[in-house]
Formats: sequence, structure tokens, C-alpha cells
Amino acid sequence: MSDNPSFVLKSVLDVGYEDRAIPEISDNEVLVKVMKTGICGSDVHYFAHGRIGDFIVENPMVLGHESSGIVFKVGSKVKNVGVGERVAIEPGAGCHSCELCKAGKYHLCQGMIFAATPPYDGTLARYYKVPADNAYTLPDGVSLEDGAMIEPLAVGVHSVATLGNFRSGQAAIVFGCGPVGLLCMAVAKALGASRVIAVDIVASRLEFAKQHVATHTYLPPPPNEGESKIEFSQRNAAQLKAQLGISERGKDAIDLVVDASGAEVSIQTAFYVAKAGGTIVQVGMGNPHITINTQMLGNKELNYKGSFRYGPGDYPFAIDLVAQGKIDLKPFVTHRYKFEDALVAFKATQAGKSEDGKAVIKIVISGPDVPVDSKL
Amino acid sequence: MSDNPSFVLKSVLDVGYEDRAIPEISDNEVLVKVMKTGICGSDVHYFAHGRIGDFIVENPMVLGHESSGIVFKVGSKVKNVGVGERVAIEPGAGCHSCELCKAGKYHLCQGMIFAATPPYDGTLARYYKVPADNAYTLPDGVSLEDGAMIEPLAVGVHSVATLGNFRSGQAAIVFGCGPVGLLCMAVAKALGASRVIAVDIVASRLEFAKQHVATHTYLPPPPNEGESKIEFSQRNAAQLKAQLGISERGKDAIDLVVDASGAEVSIQTAFYVAKAGGTIVQVGMGNPHITINTQMLGNKELNYKGSFRYGPGDYPFAIDLVAQGKIDLKPFVTHRYKFEDALVAFKATQAGKSEDGKAVIKIVISGPDVPVDSKL
Amino acid sequence: MSDNPSFVLKSVLDVGYEDRAIPEISDNEVLVKVMKTGICGSDVHYFAHGRIGDFIVENPMVLGHESSGIVFKVGSKVKNVGVGERVAIEPGAGCHSCELCKAGKYHLCQGMIFAATPPYDGTLARYYKVPADNAYTLPDGVSLEDGAMIEPLAVGVHSVATLGNFRSGQAAIVFGCGPVGLLCMAVAKALGASRVIAVDIVASRLEFAKQHVATHTYLPPPPNEGESKIEFSQRNAAQLKAQLGISERGKDAIDLVVDASGAEVSIQTAFYVAKAGGTIVQVGMGNPHITINTQMLGNKELNYKGSFRYGPGDYPFAIDLVAQGKIDLKPFVTHRYKFEDALVAFKATQAGKSEDGKAVIKIVISGPDVPVDSKL
Amino acid sequence: MSDNPSFVLKSVLDVGYEDRAIPEISDNEVLVKVMKTGICGSDVHYFAHGRIGDFIVENPMVLGHESSGIVFKVGSKVKNVGVGERVAIEPGAGCHSCELCKAGKYHLCQGMIFAATPPYDGTLARYYKVPADNAYTLPDGVSLEDGAMIEPLAVGVHSVATLGNFRSGQAAIVFGCGPVGLLCMAVAKALGASRVIAVDIVASRLEFAKQHVATHTYLPPPPNEGESKIEFSQRNAAQLKAQLGISERGKDAIDLVVDASGAEVSIQTAFYVAKAGGTIVQVGMGNPHITINTQMLGNKELNYKGSFRYGPGDYPFAIDLVAQGKIDLKPFVTHRYKFEDALVAFKATQAGKSEDGKAVIKIVISGPDVPVDSKL
Repeated sequence: MSDNPSFVLKSVLDVGYEDRAIPEISDNEVLVKVMKTGICGSDVHYFAHGRIGDFIVENPMVLGHESSGIVFKVGSKVKNVGVGERVAIEPGAGCHSCELCKAGKYHLCQGMIFAATPPYDGTLARYYKVPADNAYTLPDGVSLEDGAMIEPLAVGVHSVATLGNFRSGQAAIVFGCGPVGLLCMAVAKALGASRVIAVDIVASRLEFAKQHVATHTYLPPPPNEGESKIEFSQRNAAQLKAQLGISERGKDAIDLVVDASGAEVSIQTAFYVAKAGGTIVQVGMGNPHITINTQMLGNKELNYKGSFRYGPGDYPFAIDLVAQGKIDLKPFVTHRYKFEDALVAFKATQAGKSEDGKAVIKIVISGPDVPVDSKL
Repeated sequence: MSDNPSFVLKSVLDVGYEDRAIPEISDNEVLVKVMKTGICGSDVHYFAHGRIGDFIVENPMVLGHESSGIVFKVGSKVKNVGVGERVAIEPGAGCHSCELCKAGKYHLCQGMIFAATPPYDGTLARYYKVPADNAYTLPDGVSLEDGAMIEPLAVGVHSVATLGNFRSGQAAIVFGCGPVGLLCMAVAKALGASRVIAVDIVASRLEFAKQHVATHTYLPPPPNEGESKIEFSQRNAAQLKAQLGISERGKDAIDLVVDASGAEVSIQTAFYVAKAGGTIVQVGMGNPHITINTQMLGNKELNYKGSFRYGPGDYPFAIDLVAQGKIDLKPFVTHRYKFEDALVAFKATQAGKSEDGKAVIKIVISGPDVPVDSKL
Repeated sequence: MSDNPSFVLKSVLDVGYEDRAIPEISDNEVLVKVMKTGICGSDVHYFAHGRIGDFIVENPMVLGHESSGIVFKVGSKVKNVGVGERVAIEPGAGCHSCELCKAGKYHLCQGMIFAATPPYDGTLARYYKVPADNAYTLPDGVSLEDGAMIEPLAVGVHSVATLGNFRSGQAAIVFGCGPVGLLCMAVAKALGASRVIAVDIVASRLEFAKQHVATHTYLPPPPNEGESKIEFSQRNAAQLKAQLGISERGKDAIDLVVDASGAEVSIQTAFYVAKAGGTIVQVGMGNPHITINTQMLGNKELNYKGSFRYGPGDYPFAIDLVAQGKIDLKPFVTHRYKFEDALVAFKATQAGKSEDGKAVIKIVISGPDVPVDSKL
Repeated sequence: MSDNPSFVLKSVLDVGYEDRAIPEISDNEVLVKVMKTGICGSDVHYFAHGRIGDFIVENPMVLGHESSGIVFKVGSKVKNVGVGERVAIEPGAGCHSCELCKAGKYHLCQGMIFAATPPYDGTLARYYKVPADNAYTLPDGVSLEDGAMIEPLAVGVHSVATLGNFRSGQAAIVFGCGPVGLLCMAVAKALGASRVIAVDIVASRLEFAKQHVATHTYLPPPPNEGESKIEFSQRNAAQLKAQLGISERGKDAIDLVVDASGAEVSIQTAFYVAKAGGTIVQVGMGNPHITINTQMLGNKELNYKGSFRYGPGDYPFAIDLVAQGKIDLKPFVTHRYKFEDALVAFKATQAGKSEDGKAVIKIVISGPDVPVDSKL
């Protein structure tokens, strides 16, 4: 094995291992030995398509961005973490000096350097370097595997707590039971939701949701022949409301709808079920061109918010929810792979199931120096 | 003439005068002698189609809801206004006791009684009764004709100031140069906008906007043959940005986009020109099924808000802007009609121009007892 | 017994029973048969002093305002509750039409009618009449005794959740372990506080707090001889911070300080322990003239907020916290009295202990028709 | 003259010129040739007392922090400004990586490096180095002298716009007609205030305020013999309210009170005149131990906020207000001195008047290479 073995995407569907140089760190940076890395849909999307929107892989790029590790080296001015500490890695760093960074919206910074978003290398390597403030100490009781899961959990925190401003006693519907949807539900529940309604078109995913994070589930009917998408969405919304006793005002209303599916029917349905004055947060991404109902938006004064990654306070909040025992991340990690088997892991994530047919929620790949069954 | 002559919509395109009973008032209500009433697109829509969305005219209904008048009678507990006072009439009253009314969102109350929204009669009559807190005294210098214009101006206040949270020094684009769009621009300008960019497909409307309320104008190009709406919108946005030096971040960015057109291309364009972290307020209404770009929504964390009428504080704020001279409403009233000529006024509003070909911005109809040229 | 027996304060320390007329209700009101009433410090203050600030008892006034009951009669337009339903009574109603009521701040309405605040009668009677929207149905599992406790709990909700904007994972200090302080702690804990630090000068009260609602406690030292209040407060704050590992920035900082004591040393100490950018909510009331440190206020940009009763959403939120089992109100009711023994109950509240020496947290008096041991 | 002549405070009242090394800049920094520097009360306070609160001058320190200049050198990564550009200098820089910096509250960062706050040197020198994002290009029409005034104006922006959330049409009272108070009034007026009421105990200062930034003025009466401060403040508030027709609710109420005096009577009076639900911003600093009325705070649910310097967006907003012509800074600069006469300037600021008896509002000192009458 080499100094800094790295799992690299060379072109579409073409991956392999390269020996990259160990990064040099500056005064305010830390070098982290990567221990656990979750595979995200976006990693797989780059693997399969070589691009996401305007972000195009033009040069070989190390994959991976959901990682935890152990601090290996610290810059001379670093105070918040020390060598040997277990940390979750926030994989994106703003420029720190544009008006967005200074105003507390660093995640919207145009100069953002983000792991495994071209042209920047990711974390599926032995070493990864970040600004020290992107390394968050894991408290006792939060494992390194949990640490890798903090990244998608922070997406849930950002969508539900930060943008959704979700409060104890409120009700939420989440469309989509993939990892992000499930973690949005986990956050809503942890914040004291009165109801967390999971929606998905796969019954087994709803069962998983119900078992771990949802209070109620809803399985949409199949579309009728000749029915337009809008008609289907309206019928779907009516059924959802009737089946679960949802109104648009008063105590049976839905305060927050999160779409973590990106599916047009889900997004359309969201507009029909949200309460007057309610919020819809869009965190899932599919076909970007979606037909919504502006009459619902207007008459109910809905607030339709895009959610992008995570920003100030989201990582610490996510870690805190796990440390306090309000969220248990273990059930979400359904598969574990060795660093050497990264390609198998990518194919399983892409297929949604492993070779033995077991459904994938989240796959975690161990770092080059870490045994696959180490929970740490 | 009768006791309470009223201009009534009987069925689609069928209007006429009826003598309605003079309303009885309760302790907390006032009876207003209507002096001036503006014609709104929604009045014309009921006139032409008999319905707006789920609101259907099933029984004869008095039209009109943009009115001012003189207090004629007050209930025994009324303190805020007295007989003889000149007032603007807020035409909608919530139930005062549901959770939305109590939380400061009375405009979203399900029990809202709103003038000329079926089944409730409107203000095109000699007398109209409202809860006393819906009658706002007009300060000296604010005419009764201005008073009738407070209603659409309050829509602009609600969209730009209340929902748009627009601040001095910010930049706005407003799509649509109808009365609501123009008044949104007027509010943005009055609040100290650095730039107010008017967009419309009719050059003469842009000229009007530039003359009175906009700092810049933009005339979209014609669509190319074979170009999809989305492609056209993207090209339109690119041209708008290039032509007016707009960026998505930094000091040349657009803080607030208001769509007062309801047109799909306008709404789509809004998503491409809004700044990262910016707000789009939807106040115009056309075909409700609009295709938007959720990738822009997500990557820029846009906030897409529906705007419905006006709520707490919007009426007083609108009156105040006029009283302080920050907004001059006179130029917007392009035509004036007698009560007896209400039908002609409706047809002119529908056509967008009067018989002599002069473009209509806003038509004001005088009350039954008021000479048409009285400015009061 | 009479038609509407009522417990009346005639003048300072002079109370007795009177037979009052059964109130007539209007279309939107309900008549409630009062079942349980908690005694509040303000009731005792009127009993002992005949006034609170500018509110002076000039005519005989029925005492009591923390009540639950059973709906006995409803007005013709009432929809939200029916005869026979168990309800918590919100004891104050705004005018519904001033700018504060309409903007969602009805609790600041100048025309507020509030039970047992002169000149308005209170709830220690057989019947009490309220606007229907002031009667909140108690869900199964929330007893009528809990229902009487919703009033002080709503004060806690207003201070901690509504004004304090307290979020899961945050840390709070509450000065004062009287009923309001304890219920503020209960709300903070129910919302997911990382730490709830109770402060009081009576060790047994701290024990009670620790047992039920606080995660940590702090007993201030005695003042030193010759030490000024400010010096004492600074020393007190330094000790509190050292003892409990509190910093002014970062993860060991205190997000919210609530003063429920009204004591000058507590309020002063609050300014020294709050985090940079933090909030202090003032809900306790003692001597109104308090010396604070404006340098702390400025350098840390503290937000010092007055809290007055409760407003929109606070009652439903309080009921919901109890219904969901997040707050258990039973331990707070330490004493129960018959309606006939109201004077004994007042004297025990005033003394802070009953005749047998047992410390009073909250006393509940049963309605005239209710056995004292009925928990319902 | 030397390489980097600097005006240094050696110990209390002991100042002189030293030749300091020209600062080295790093990749993201710029070196500015200082052109104009305003003298602030805090500069004079260090000069006279050697300390402000816990900030103690222990080593010789260059004074001055309200400066503009011309960019002399830029680091290799700097993009926002170029050599030769005229800039306003924001004199404080946070660490960019603590939780406060990342959350948009960099001004509360514990690691803040601030010009002329010990142990950091100030700007009264030929050269001053800042992070590039602390240098803001001055638009045409904004002079370098204006540029030096941006610093105190940003304090006004922070207090009135950012913390005070002041909106067009609202009413403000500002206590204290020193530079900060006057600039708070200027901001309120520029934002569209309906009323800006200036309060000061010196009639000539009120005249100045009325002439430039206030719509109304109020001169407090002298205290009566034997009257306590609280009694005086209550009488003062009553007189202020009567004289200017101020109420605590409704349209004659005061939305925002800013105390820029630090005087106890002013702060106390603020609590009596603020509206229900209103805000008091504390920006002035005197004796930190101030007795306020918690009953007013509570019953009116006031929001008493400390204001510390300025944060994200305040500098650009201040520059924008001047560039748009909404604020004219020229009248505030009453005296101009050569770099060589800095001591005279300090003494005049301390005395509040120059040797010829002319009242000082703001003194500006030219940089070593700049003629005193250069307005640039």
C-alpha cells in the first residue's frame, strides 16, 4: 500500500486506486486519517454520469464526502482539536470572506471547496485535510461510524430544524424514505414532533421508516390510466388527507412538508397537503423541471424553500442529537465494506441492494487502515 | 334612485342595478357611504367567468371591493372612527377567534368575509358595512380616490414589505406592469430600493413604469421558434442579467423578485435571476400549473413565497406611505366613471383600454351620490 | 348554597363568599362550570395588598384565574367546544380589533379583560364565562387538575419557547424555583435542553427542581459583609460559572437565562452568565427598580426581554406538552382544598407552607360542586 | 518623516510619534495608505484613562480606528480591491472560524482584532493592514472623509437597522446628540422614519440635530430638588409624552428607542416612553450600573438590546446610504487637523470644543501624506 491510497473516479464508470500525495496543511488546518465514509447518492451519480448539473468531472477526482476520522496532524494555530481526537469531518469550506460567509450563509459561498464536488478531491483516501473548524470532536458514545453519518444527518438538521424551523409539537410529512428522508424524519421526531408521516412508493421502506423514525406512513395509490400527473397528485393528496385525518388549518394541520424524493408527484402533493401559512422544504433532487400549483402557494401563503447542504450550527446540532441519544444512527447503516471493495459498495448503492438482495439504506466504507467490522 | 342602489352580478356577463336593504350594524360595526371604488382584475374575472378557482358566484352578488367612503353610522362601542370621517375600507374580516386570526394571520382565516368574493356582497353600492377596525381614517392630503387605491397598494405592501422583507438599499425585479406590479414597484421605491427593475412584454407599460416607479426596465425578447418555455426562460434570464448587470451574489444581485404577472415564463425567469439566499414573492395569478426549476431553488436556497391579499399592519402602512408623500397614487388612476356607467367601466377594464383607445391602468367608479370628477 | 357562589375579595385581607348572578353569554361565548382553580402569587398579592402596580381593587372582586372546568352552556355560534366538554380556561381576552390583537399580540391589548385583575371578576365561582376561543378542550389523559395548571405552564411556554425561542440542545439557567420558575424549567426540559440549571436560595426547593425538572442546581453563597449587591452578583456569577463549567461562548455557554425570581441579585447575575448573543427573559416580578449592567448588555449584545402572561399558541402548546407526556404536572400540585376552605388555601400560599409545615408549590381549590380529592 | 509614522499612546495622557515597521501582508490581506481618520470617544477615553472596562493599554498602542485610505498593496489572492482604490476600512476582524464568526456574528468573536483596542495598534499611521474583506471600495461621490465617517455610521446602521429592525413609517426617539446619536437619527431618517425625536440636555446640540437629522427635539427639564432619579425620569417621560403627543399603543407610539447617551435618566426614561412590544437599543456607554424598571419591561414586553459595534452587512449598508444621497455626512465633520496636530485634535475632542470655542461634533485627522483641506 502507498502513502495516501485514494479511490478515484477517472471517467464515467471508470474508477480505481491511486497513490496521491499526502496533503500539506497550513497553520489553521488539520490532517485527518479517514476511518469511515458513507456513500451518498451524489457520489454514485458522479460515478454513473460524470456530472451533477453544472458540476462536471473533468479530471480524475477522489470520491467520498461523508467521513469521520482521527486527527493525524494539526497546524500551528489550531486550538479546537488535537492529534488523536476522533472527529466528524464537515466536507465543505467557504472562502470565509465573501458577504455570504460573513453573514452566516457560508454554504452558499461561490468559492466553496467541497469534497468530491469537481474539481475538488473527496475523502475516500487515507488522509484528508480540512480547515480546523471543519473537524468536530465526537463525544463519548458517538462512534466513528456515527461520525460518518453526521454528514447526511446535518442535511436533515438543516432542512427540518434550520430552514423548517420545526418546533416541538408540530406535525411533519416527509416524502421519500431514502437516507436523507429518513434522517429528516429522525430530526423531526427528535425535536418532539406530534406526528411524522413517511411517504414512499415502496412498502418495505415505509416499514423501515415506521420502525425507526415515523409515527405514521402513507403508501400512494397507483396512478389511474389516462390521469395527468396533476390529477394524480390531487387525488393522492385527497387520499392522504382523508386517510390520516389531515386538515389545512387547526390542530390537524401539517406544519412542515419535506420533499426528499425529488419526484414530481410528491412535490405536487406537498402543495395540496401543507397547512395555510405552512412551509415546504425541498431537499430531494430529481428532474429539476417540476410543475407546481401557484394557486395553493398563493391562497395558503406557503413558503417553498430550497435546502442546500448545511450551514452554521448544523453539524454541532446533529452531533448533539446523537450524543444525547435522541437519534440512533445505527439502524441506518445496513452494509459495511472494506476500502478495497469500494467499487462493490458503489454498485450496491446504485442498485439499491447488495448482491444477496438486501436493501441498502446506507453503506459505510472503512478507511484503508481500518478493519471493516470496527465500530470504534 | 333607491335606498341602497347596488351594482350586482347576476350571472356570467349579466349585471344590473338592484335596490338592496341598507345593512344593519352591530355594536362594533360602522356603516360607510361609499365614495370611490377601484375596479380590480378579480371583479372583472367574476363578471366574465362567474368564478375564480373554487369561489363560484351562485347567487346575485354586489361587485367591488377597492373602496373608500365617509362614515355614515357607527355602532355603540366604536371608538376608532366617527360619523363624517373619510375612511379607506379594508374589505375582508376574519373570524377574530381562530388560531390564525389570533396569531396575526387573519388574512388566512377560513371564515374570512371578503367583499365581492362569493357568497359575500361587495362595495359597489351606496352603503357598505364593516367591522369598525376595517375602517381606516384618511389623513389630510390623502384623497378619497387615493383611499380607494389603498386596497391594491396594500397588496404591494404585503408582497414587498411584509413578505419580501424589503429593506432600503436592496434591489428588486417586478414581473408585470399591471396595477399590482406597478404598486409593488412603488412600495420598493418608497422603501429605498437601489434598483427597481420593471419587466413587461408591452413597451408602453414599461414606459409608464419607468416614468413613475421603476429605475430600470426590461423588455423580454420574443420566443424563438421551436424553443421550449424553459429554454426561452433561460435565454430570457441570461439576457436580463447581461443587459442590466445582474449577478447572483454580491452587490449586483437581486434581493427580491416579485411576480405580478402570473405568466409561466416570468415565474421561470425569476428562479434564474434571484440571488443566492434570495426571495421570490408570487402575487400574480394565471394558470396555476407552473413549471419551475427546483435545482435553482435548492442550489441557491431560494425562498418562494405565496402572497395572499394583505394582513396586519398592511393597510396603515399603505396609507402612511401615501400620507408621507413617498407614493403618489394619482398617476395610476387613468379613468373615472359614474356609478351609472359601471358596466362601461367593467368592459374597459376587461379590454385594457377605454373606447377612445386609452390604456387602462386603474378605473375608479364614483359612488351613487358622488360626481365623477370629485377628487375629495 | 346559592346559584353562583363566588369567593370575593372585598378589601385588603377581607374575603368572603357572595352569591353572584350567573353570567349571561352571547353568541360567541361559553359558560364554564369551574372545577379546579390554582392559587397564584398575584391572587395572594391582591388579597394581601389590594393592588399590583397600577391595578387597584376598588370594588369587591372575585379572585382566581388558573382554572379548568366543564362547559355548561354555549352561545349560538360556538363551534370549537360543546356542552359537557372538559376545558382549560384562558383567563384573558383582548378586544380582538386593536392593532396589537390583529398583529398576534393580543396579550398586550390595552382593553384586555383578565380574570381577577381589577375591575374584572375571577374564576373562584361556580360559573365563569369566556369567549369560546378561550376554552381549550383537554385531551384524554390531561386531568382537570392539569387543566388548572395550564395557566402557569403557559407562562413558562411563553417565556421559554415563544420569547426565549429555546431549541433542542440548548442550555438554560432559571433563577427562582417557585411555580413559574419550575414550569419554565419543565418547558426547557421538554423542548430538549442539554442543561437546565435551577438556581434558588432555598436548598429544599433546589432538590425539588432537581427531582423533577432540572439537570443541575446551584445554591448561591451568602453575601459577604460590606459587599455591595453588584459585587455580590459578580462573585455569585463567577462561582456559578466555575462550579458548573459555564463559558460565555462555545458549547458550554448558556443560551437562555430566565429570571423567575424578581430578585435583584438574580437579575444582575443573569447578565454576567448569559452567553454572547444570548437572551435573558424576565418573568418574575419583585421590586421593579433593578440595577443591571449595561456593559454586559452591550459587549455581549444581550437581548433582555420582558415576558407578560401568554399569547397566541401558548395555551395549545402547553396542553400539547402535557398530553404528549413531555411534562408531568402532578408533582407540582402539593396541596388541595375545598371551595369552602379558600381562605385557608390563600393563607397557606402566602405563608409558603400549610399548617402542617409542608412546603407549598401549588395549591388547587376545587369548585363548589367538586369533591377535593377528585382528580378527574 | 519615517517609513510608517504612527501616533502612539504610551501611557495615560502621554502620546507621541513613533516610526513603526510597515506591516507585512499575507495572501488575503491589503495594505492601506491611511488618508482620513475620525477621532472617537473611545480613542479619547484610552488617551485619558488608559483603559475601557477590561481593555487596558499595557504597551504603547497606535490610536485611531475610524479610517479611510487608498489601497497600497494587495496580497496574492485578493480580488475584491485593487491598488489605488479608495476604501473605507472596517477596523475589526474576527477569527473567521469560531461558531460566532461562522454564524454571522463575527463582531462578538472572542478573537476579534480591533484597531486601537489593546493590545492591537490603530490606524493613525501612514499604513494600516487589514484582511481584504475589511476594505470596502468607496463609490464615486463618497469622499475619503466620508469614508472615515463610515465607521460611526455603521454603528448607527447596526443599532437602528440591524438590531432595531427599523422600518419605513416607524417612529424613533434617540437619546444623546453626540456623533453616534446623530448618526442613529440619520439612519432612522434615511430609512423613512415618520418621526425622529432627538433628546439632549444641551439646546445647541438639539438645534444641530433638528437642522440635519431630527424631525422633533426634546429638552428635558432640570431635576427638582430632592427628587430621586427614578422620580425625575418618570416626570421626564410624562413631559416628553405630553409635549410630543406620544402614546404607548397605536399610531402615536414609539417603535424604537435608542440610547446613545449612556446616562441613567435617559435609559430610565426610555422604558417609560417605548411602546408596548417595542425595542430599546443601548449603544451609548457611561456608568455601566443602571437602574431600570422591570415592570415596564414586563408589562409592555419590551425588548432591551445591547448594541456592539457592527457586523455583517453594516459597512456596505452605511456606504450605500451615503452613495445614494440618503445621508449627508459633511455637516458632522466640524473640525479638521493635520497628522502632526493629532494631540490638539484629541484635546479638542476631549473638551468638546476647539480652542476658538467652536463645538466639536466630529474631528477628522488627515494622514501623514495628506493636506488637511483635501476632501478627496
